[in-house]
Amino acid sequence: MFEKYGFSELQTPTLEYAEVLLGKSGTEAEKLMYLFKDPGGRDVGLKYDLTVPLARVMTQYPNLPKPFKRYQIQPAFRAENTQKGRYREFYQCDIDTVGTASPLADAEILAVISDSLTALGFKEFKIRINSRQILFGTTGDLNVLQSIDKLDKKSVDEVRDELKQKNISGSEITNIFAKLETAQPNDNLRQIIDLAQKLGAKNIKFDARLVRGLDYYTGAIFETLVTEPKVGSITGGGRYDNLIKSLGGPDLPAVGTSFGLDRICDVIKELNLWPDAVLTPTQVLVTIFSPELLDKSIELSIKLRQAGGGVELYPDDRIKLEKQLKYASQKGIPYVAILGPEEIAKNQVTVKNMFTGEQKCLPESELISFFS
Amino acid sequence: MFEKYGFSELQTPTLEYAEVLLGKSGTEAEKLMYLFKDPGGRDVGLKYDLTVPLARVMTQYPNLPKPFKRYQIQPAFRAENTQKGRYREFYQCDIDTVGTASPLADAEILAVISDSLTALGFKEFKIRINSRQILFGTTGDLNVLQSIDKLDKKSVDEVRDELKQKNISGSEITNIFAKLETAQPNDNLRQIIDLAQKLGAKNIKFDARLVRGLDYYTGAIFETLVTEPKVGSITGGGRYDNLIKSLGGPDLPAVGTSFGLDRICDVIKELNLWPDAVLTPTQVLVTIFSPELLDKSIELSIKLRQAGGGVELYPDDRIKLEKQLKYASQKGIPYVAILGPEEIAKNQVTVKNMFTGEQKCLPESELISFFS
Repeated sequence: MFEKYGFSELQTPTLEYAEVLLGKSGTEAEKLMYLFKDPGGRDVGLKYDLTVPLARVMTQYPNLPKPFKRYQIQPAFRAENTQKGRYREFYQCDIDTVGTASPLADAEILAVISDSLTALGFKEFKIRINSRQILFGTTGDLNVLQSIDKLDKKSVDEVRDELKQKNISGSEITNIFAKLETAQPNDNLRQIIDLAQKLGAKNIKFDARLVRGLDYYTGAIFETLVTEPKVGSITGGGRYDNLIKSLGGPDLPAVGTSFGLDRICDVIKELNLWPDAVLTPTQVLVTIFSPELLDKSIELSIKLRQAGGGVELYPDDRIKLEKQLKYASQKGIPYVAILGPEEIAKNQVTVKNMFTGEQKCLPESELISFFS
Repeated sequence: MFEKYGFSELQTPTLEYAEVLLGKSGTEAEKLMYLFKDPGGRDVGLKYDLTVPLARVMTQYPNLPKPFKRYQIQPAFRAENTQKGRYREFYQCDIDTVGTASPLADAEILAVISDSLTALGFKEFKIRINSRQILFGTTGDLNVLQSIDKLDKKSVDEVRDELKQKNISGSEITNIFAKLETAQPNDNLRQIIDLAQKLGAKNIKFDARLVRGLDYYTGAIFETLVTEPKVGSITGGGRYDNLIKSLGGPDLPAVGTSFGLDRICDVIKELNLWPDAVLTPTQVLVTIFSPELLDKSIELSIKLRQAGGGVELYPDDRIKLEKQLKYASQKGIPYVAILGPEEIAKNQVTVKNMFTGEQKCLPESELISFFS
C-alpha cells in the first residue's frame, strides 16, 4: 500500500554515530539507548527510532528529490524492561513525506493509514485528528495537556481530580473543559480532513482532546484507535516542520506516521482477521514410501512445485511413513501425498488432509491441478 | 524459491550474548566482532553470522520438529576495513536443513541453489562439489590444502612453487597432484550428485581441488562460480554434522549453504539480468494543474490506483507543473498524467512518457486500462 502511494523503501544501518542518536533526545531516551565504542574506537549506538536516521539521511544527501516520500520497516532498539508488547528489539514502521508543508501531504498520510488498515481487514477503527494550535488555544500549560491526554483512558472526573492535584484552580479547569467541548477544527485541519476524505480515508474524527508529542509536532496530530481489542493507539503521527532542522539537518517541513506493528499483529490475531494465515509455506509434503520408490516421489515433488505451490519432499528416504506424517502434522502442513507400490501400480496418489484426517486416492494429474 | 522447497523463514535478534558469539570462533573472528556491555550490564554483541544463531535456536528450542529447514536473510556485522563488496553491516542469506544425515538433504540444497540462480536469470554458473573425505585422501596436511584451494585463481606452477616454499618435497607434490588428477567422487558424493540431478539441479561438477572450511565441514562441500564477471564464489556450503554440538548445542547433523547476496547483485547488475528493474514503485505521477483542479487529479489518482498500479499524486497543489515534471524525471517515474482545463473539457488526460518525451492525449478510460 505504501508503494501504491509512491512511498519508496529506505533502509538505514543498524548503527548510527552516538552524537546523531543523542542530538534529539533528552536524558530519558538516552537511558534506553544501546551506546558503545565500536572496535575502531568510534562512539556508536543502535538505532533508537526511524526518525533520527531519516533526518540524518536528509542532511547527508541534500540533493534527494523533494518531496521525499519514504517508508521504512526496520528494527529499533531500546533497553527497556521487557513485557508483553514491549521488546528491546522491535520493528518500527514509518511513512513520511519530507519537503512540503502542503495539507495535501497530511491528507495523503491519513489516506494511506485508512487504506492500509482496510487492506489488513480492519473494519472498526477511528482516526482521531487534532492540531497543536487547537490544543494551545485550550491551554498553554503542558502539565495540563498531559492530564488531558489521559481522557481516552480515564473519566472526566478522574482527570478533573488529577488537575486539582496539580494546583489548577476550579474555574480554570471548568474553562479548559468548556473550551475542549466547543473546540472546532481550524482552517488547516478542515482542509486536511476534507482532502483526506476525497482521497478515500474513512473514519476520521476531529477530537480536541487528542494530545501527542507536543515537543516536536507543529501542526496536525493524529492517531488511530480500535474499539476491540483494547490495545491503545495502533498508529500515531503528525506534522513536524522543525524537527529535521533541530536535529542538525536542513530546514524541511515534514509529515508522517508510525504504524504500531506489534499492536496491529495483536489485533489481527485477537479478531482472527487472517483465518487462512498459514504456519508454513508448504502446502503439501510428498512422503517417501521406501528408498526403492524415492525416484517416484522426487518426480511428483517436481511436478507439484512446477504447478506453483510450496512443496516439501521429505528429506530422508530411510524414515518410516508414520514419522513423516507426524512431521507434517507438527509443522502444520495441510496435505500429505503418499506414493506406495499400490498407488504407483494404479498411476494414482493417496492424499491425506492433515486437518480433517480425510484420505483419498486420485490420479496424479488431478492432484497437480488441485495445487496449481 | 526457498519457501517452494519448504524452508521457513527464521529471524533471530540482532544481539546475542557474547559467550554464544565467541563459542565457535577463534581470535581471528573475535577481532571483527562488535562486542559490548548493554545498559543492563550484560556482555552482548552484534550477530557475526547466521550459523551461530541457528545453533543457539536449536539448543534453546529442542522440540522444534526435525528435520528443521529454515532460511534466514538478515544483516551480519563485522568490524572490517570497508571496501567494494565488503561492508561492516551486510546481508547474509542462508538455507540449512538440520536433523538429518540423509544425502537427499544435501541434494536438495544443490537443487535450491540451481533453481534459485536460474530464477534470478543466471545461465552460466557451475556448482563445484567435493568432499572432506576426498580431500583428506589426497593429503592430511591442512597447510597443503590451503595452497590447493588457490588452484581456481593461480596456475598449477604457481601452486607448486608455493608448496615448495612450504617445504613440501618434489615427490610429495607430484604425488598430491597425481591424486588430484585421478580422484573420483566417493559413494556418498555420487549419490548426492545423482539425487540433485534428479531434483533438477543443473551444472554440478565434481572438482577434487575444491577446498572449503575444513575446520567444520564433515562431508560434502560445494560452491558456485560464475565465469562472467569474475566475482569469486556466489554460494558456499556443505555438510557440518559436528558444528551444532561443538557450539554447545544438541548433536544434530546439518547441511546448508550461504548465498553471497552482494556478489549476486553485482552479477545481476554487470550482466544486466534485470533490464526492467525500476528505480521507484511509482508507475505514474498524477500532476496537479492548479488548486482549482485538484479534485480532478485526486479522482484520477484513486481510479488509477484501484486499477492496480503504483500511483503518486503530486503532494502539493501550489507547485508549477514544470517543477512537478522535473520531480518525476529525478525520481525515474516513467509516466506523468496531466489534467488541465483543456483535457477536462474533452474528458481526456495528457500522458507523457518521461523516457522518450512522447506525449499524447487520450480518454481517461484508455489510460486506466493501460495501467491495469
